[in-house]
Amino acid sequence: MSLLNDEMNAVNQLIGKRMASENAPRIPEVTKHLVDAGGKRLRPLLTLAAAKICGYDGPYHIHLAATVEFIHTATLLHDDVVDESAQRRGRPTANLLWDNQSSVLVGDYLFSRSFQLMVETGNLRVLDILANASATIAEGEVLQLTAAQNLKTSEDTYFKVIRGKTAALFSAATQVGGVIANAPENHIEALFDYGDALGISFQIVDDLLDYSGVAASLGKNIGDDFRERKLTLPVIKAVANATPDEKQFWERVIEKGKQSDGDLETALSLLDKYNCLEDTKEQAIAYASQAKSALTNIPDSELKDILLELADFVVSRAV
Amino acid sequence: MSLLNDEMNAVNQLIGKRMASENAPRIPEVTKHLVDAGGKRLRPLLTLAAAKICGYDGPYHIHLAATVEFIHTATLLHDDVVDESAQRRGRPTANLLWDNQSSVLVGDYLFSRSFQLMVETGNLRVLDILANASATIAEGEVLQLTAAQNLKTSEDTYFKVIRGKTAALFSAATQVGGVIANAPENHIEALFDYGDALGISFQIVDDLLDYSGVAASLGKNIGDDFRERKLTLPVIKAVANATPDEKQFWERVIEKGKQSDGDLETALSLLDKYNCLEDTKEQAIAYASQAKSALTNIPDSELKDILLELADFVVSRAV
Repeated sequence: MSLLNDEMNAVNQLIGKRMASENAPRIPEVTKHLVDAGGKRLRPLLTLAAAKICGYDGPYHIHLAATVEFIHTATLLHDDVVDESAQRRGRPTANLLWDNQSSVLVGDYLFSRSFQLMVETGNLRVLDILANASATIAEGEVLQLTAAQNLKTSEDTYFKVIRGKTAALFSAATQVGGVIANAPENHIEALFDYGDALGISFQIVDDLLDYSGVAASLGKNIGDDFRERKLTLPVIKAVANATPDEKQFWERVIEKGKQSDGDLETALSLLDKYNCLEDTKEQAIAYASQAKSALTNIPDSELKDILLELADFVVSRAV
Repeated sequence: MSLLNDEMNAVNQLIGKRMASENAPRIPEVTKHLVDAGGKRLRPLLTLAAAKICGYDGPYHIHLAATVEFIHTATLLHDDVVDESAQRRGRPTANLLWDNQSSVLVGDYLFSRSFQLMVETGNLRVLDILANASATIAEGEVLQLTAAQNLKTSEDTYFKVIRGKTAALFSAATQVGGVIANAPENHIEALFDYGDALGISFQIVDDLLDYSGVAASLGKNIGDDFRERKLTLPVIKAVANATPDEKQFWERVIEKGKQSDGDLETALSLLDKYNCLEDTKEQAIAYASQAKSALTNIPDSELKDILLELADFVVSRAV
């Protein structure tokens, strides 16, 4: 990915500059904590690659890449408040180090900053796409909130949630790359479809990792979703197969939230019994393939290879 | 204000339509609660009046009026989480009726919806103004958070906070009215100055009411700011005049947060001793005058009278 090194550096510089605030010193404190924690910069990479694949040679893909990372960071801050999370990327969360208030308000600030950045591009279609994506993300998060603790949550609802909370930003990130480059409509559509399928695959893998042994290596706590009583794909599959006794177990731990020592282990054994993690992984792989296929009509290039490799990388985390 | 009745109805219809969400039923539940609670619709009124004063005859002042109300509503939802408020407009807050999570996420949703609405106007200058205002609001809120509990907070810092958290949206509301109407620059500036001074006056009065007897009639609890240990103008004035004993009182109740029965009464008597409420009111009146003076170069009209009367109305709440 060294092809995009210079541009990613420019994105990081812009992020650093715009994350600051002269008027409220708490803001750079919190944002520095987030920037220092790193993160994969996956979404800005998507925008940069998409724009360059479509031959863009202007300056605004940098702004758009920073925009999508700001939207992402804002949602992370708010998610950690909503989930009452204590750890993110192997470090204490901002809500733990400061307070929920700071996380809510600094999230709002970054969200506003993201809009400032996108407005600077002067491209109304890009603004439309990103404003819609932001609304879709929030809808997905709210739907997730209300689906949590509800054992009746179907795979359909699950996919609605992750298409909103995760895939909407992936697909917007790739789509605006094409739009800013004035690419032909079928290329813009291909980039959208790629981002959409990649985002779904990414989130399935994320949800899978929450029940698998490699989570610790990613700075995640295994079982977070279980403790937060979220209905993710592995659990939805286990519930669908549950015997009456098992159903009672899920009702107790997910619906009633009465969890005690050993429950996570029981949950894991039920996921194993019905092959839920393997099946979930198969679905993630299928979406990654779909992401790659979406790019068929885009001419081959080293940059296109980056996107194809990204799809493999996303599912490789699950192995 | 019957001059703007039809247009305000159109704004209310648009707000009702865009506050909904097909995908996440929790969203309309929460937003309906907010809409039903009413609210003064002061900010949309500013946008409508400003646009019409400048001779606007297109459809987009409705969108912009709905936009500023959405931004306002989103910040209310987040404020109530930050302040852990239980009451708003005489009704229980959304964070109490549902939970903090819903308030954070539905706030994000409304914020995104506001951006969708403003993007529909296709006016980049308007987008720039409103994106900047959003960032300034968040900065003001964060500054308020860090200034709370700090007795060293100066009147300067107080004005920085309220110019951010309140006046920025008032001035953007009037300014975009002028911009969408393609008004001459000096009229746009006048409208900005009017909104800025009006917003400051409005917030001073709000902070005054928190220590005055008429608060209950507005659905507010008296002493909320005291309990939240916010340094508002009346208290800043009392602290500036405090004897060593009084200083110790303020340190205990505001900095250390050790409040007990009778402390609010003591605070009120200290505000009275140094004439703080009267002095605060004088400043609110001065800003309201400044708001009216800002409009001097705008030709007289019935609509201009609405803005002039609004300035009087804002301070009349304090009497």
